[in-house]
Amino acid sequence: MAVTDIATRAYDHTFRLDPIVRSLLDTDFYKLLMLQMIRQLHPDVQATFSLINRTTRVRLADIIDEGELRAQLDHARNIRFTKKELIWLAGNSFYGKARMFGPDFIAWLADFRLPEYALHKADGQYELHFSGPWTHTTMWEIPALAIINELKSRAAMRNRGQFTLDVLYARAKARLWEKVERLRHLPDLVISDFGTRRRHGFLWQRWCVEALKEGLGERFIGTSNVLLAMDADLEAIGTNAHELPMVAAALAEGDEALARAPYEVLEEWRQHYNGNLLIALPDAFGTASFLANAPNWVADWTGFRPDSMPPIEGGEQIIRWWRGKGRDPRSKLLIFSDGMDIDSIEETYRHFQGRVRMSFGWGTNLTNDFRGCDPDGGTGLDPISLVCKVTSANGRPAVKLSDNPLKATGDPAEIERYRRVFGVSGQDARPVDV
Amino acid sequence: MAVTDIATRAYDHTFRLDPIVRSLLDTDFYKLLMLQMIRQLHPDVQATFSLINRTTRVRLADIIDEGELRAQLDHARNIRFTKKELIWLAGNSFYGKARMFGPDFIAWLADFRLPEYALHKADGQYELHFSGPWTHTTMWEIPALAIINELKSRAAMRNRGQFTLDVLYARAKARLWEKVERLRHLPDLVISDFGTRRRHGFLWQRWCVEALKEGLGERFIGTSNVLLAMDADLEAIGTNAHELPMVAAALAEGDEALARAPYEVLEEWRQHYNGNLLIALPDAFGTASFLANAPNWVADWTGFRPDSMPPIEGGEQIIRWWRGKGRDPRSKLLIFSDGMDIDSIEETYRHFQGRVRMSFGWGTNLTNDFRGCDPDGGTGLDPISLVCKVTSANGRPAVKLSDNPLKATGDPAEIERYRRVFGVSGQDARPVDV
Repeated sequence: MAVTDIATRAYDHTFRLDPIVRSLLDTDFYKLLMLQMIRQLHPDVQATFSLINRTTRVRLADIIDEGELRAQLDHARNIRFTKKELIWLAGNSFYGKARMFGPDFIAWLADFRLPEYALHKADGQYELHFSGPWTHTTMWEIPALAIINELKSRAAMRNRGQFTLDVLYARAKARLWEKVERLRHLPDLVISDFGTRRRHGFLWQRWCVEALKEGLGERFIGTSNVLLAMDADLEAIGTNAHELPMVAAALAEGDEALARAPYEVLEEWRQHYNGNLLIALPDAFGTASFLANAPNWVADWTGFRPDSMPPIEGGEQIIRWWRGKGRDPRSKLLIFSDGMDIDSIEETYRHFQGRVRMSFGWGTNLTNDFRGCDPDGGTGLDPISLVCKVTSANGRPAVKLSDNPLKATGDPAEIERYRRVFGVSGQDARPVDV
Repeated sequence: MAVTDIATRAYDHTFRLDPIVRSLLDTDFYKLLMLQMIRQLHPDVQATFSLINRTTRVRLADIIDEGELRAQLDHARNIRFTKKELIWLAGNSFYGKARMFGPDFIAWLADFRLPEYALHKADGQYELHFSGPWTHTTMWEIPALAIINELKSRAAMRNRGQFTLDVLYARAKARLWEKVERLRHLPDLVISDFGTRRRHGFLWQRWCVEALKEGLGERFIGTSNVLLAMDADLEAIGTNAHELPMVAAALAEGDEALARAPYEVLEEWRQHYNGNLLIALPDAFGTASFLANAPNWVADWTGFRPDSMPPIEGGEQIIRWWRGKGRDPRSKLLIFSDGMDIDSIEETYRHFQGRVRMSFGWGTNLTNDFRGCDPDGGTGLDPISLVCKVTSANGRPAVKLSDNPLKATGDPAEIERYRRVFGVSGQDARPVDV
């Protein structure tokens, strides 16, 4: 006879909330690295982060119940870093370095909580803004995205039978494992999980991370998700994000300061971190402009993370630039993380093999590829292109151009000004799927 | 924090045996139908059933531990029909008929237990014989096969990590569901599970049956497994097996009686059952001979289950015979059950659609298709062609010729005699995969 743990069953049937965010460590590692620097250098900057759904055909406000969304956001606001988590952050080595986070920062985190949010519906979408000190609003990016993406998944799976769900996950597992088996054919592969923000759900991301750990061995170097890194004894992976140059640019007084801003940010970063953390994002305001105007010392950095150009084109451009600066690309690192999937990983790997060090940050197509897996059909589980971007700093509009104008964000007039200052060479519109 | 039911965990870690056969109803329905008749007409016949592994390259005695095998066989011998099971057998309708099993038979079942077995190893194989009253030894066929097949699966999965097993079953589920989705394109499909004897395992068969129930709706008419039929409120499916003509032939005195035996068996069956249970197996000693010499009344039967000839060839042969007897095949039923899988089901369905009533009994390739599913590779989970056949009756050798000489069983000298009596026209050797 089946043994039923009555207490567990009763608990499962009566709990108020199935929380999506279970810990403040359930975020990307780069948020903590950036936060430590922001707190030290820019503690008084006010920044607003805003949700942007680039997949406008998916009307999130029609799909996700507002009450559920508020309950999940409120739940996240009630979470604190636990003692265990802070001890781990203080005591663990990251990128081979002990005491990456200073005691002062760790002590400050103990009192940290996510700030308030402003939510309302408009045109079938959610407007969701986080306003306040940059040191606090920055931490909403990943949990906000994870919450909305998982609520969307849950909505798509509501009222499905147990059997349908069983087949759904069986298919998704089989699919991911096919990808793992293909990746095994790339002997020098270096890959990590970047899929927290876009994940189908927390438990599914955990499964995906376990799959890569089990299937790729040493080739899987870790996860951007700090909680999963801690729980699975993996490396926490990540460096910095577009918000640094975006805020710096927003705060710059005049066009000349604006043009200098992307490099000043790197100077700040270099004061805090070194080695494999010296990875520059070249595309915030266009890669071509960034490289053309970069000071020579940028070529001393370990590498780049091209994030909005096709990987081979973006990589070749950077390799040409390194060569122009007299550097050997084989000692340099390229991190590819823009909508990668098995085909583009294989193609990029084979293209650059032996010519440059490479690493792949695998996001949406790792942790949210349920396309065609639903036995009942439909596209409700397809991933969408949802981001949470800084939209203003100290009341001034923040802008991102990127190499793909379809990924540009910000006030249109400011975008025009940035285009004038940085130029638009190398800009090319390509569909943004994820 | 994870909730652990300590009592369950302790039980799981300490149980002496994970039983493969959980109930005497965990057998094929036709065994019960035949048993009722055997008990009434042939209560004194002694019959030996023997295990035959036609996949000789798989050395079962090297794979399966003898102690485990004995423990499972011994466990099965300790099982009795429960009150609930007997009440269900007595009260349920089968093939639309109430009281299929008489009260006398039900009362007799209450004392039934599986008889002794003789087991030893030879040449890397197990010799396993069941000798005793036919009324008892016949009931070993299905549990013996299910036990050996599941022990083989367990051996292949021993020491695998939890993750490997997770991917293994995910792939098998995804594969079966692809088959289900293809079967959905066949609007008039009639299909049932015949996979008990060859199943990967009991729990997996149960999942497969649930998959067909969920995915095929009315097209899935039931399962040959009586326990699953009871538990899932499905129809129990099945009629009769080769052991009836084989025993009758073995007991026949002289060649003339031998030639008559296959038809006398049908006469006996007809005294007990009717309607959709009037299904004849034509191939025990060759279909061509059976049809050529069949009395006219055989054409009154509902249909045939061709079981060792390619389905289209076998079906066409029977349709021609029905036409020769002036019968309309559209009122007749063909049941295809020999190693069917998705391709051959589709092909056979499309070939005969509108020309004859059809039903498919899906066995090994439903409940044991793990080929290529093992993340660690290897063929340990591939199904094998294992049967448990009657080998003697009252001390005289029992023989099966079949339409495929590679499926013939029995004493070589007797096989030669049977070939002489029944002829060998239509015999054609084809590889026996499952």
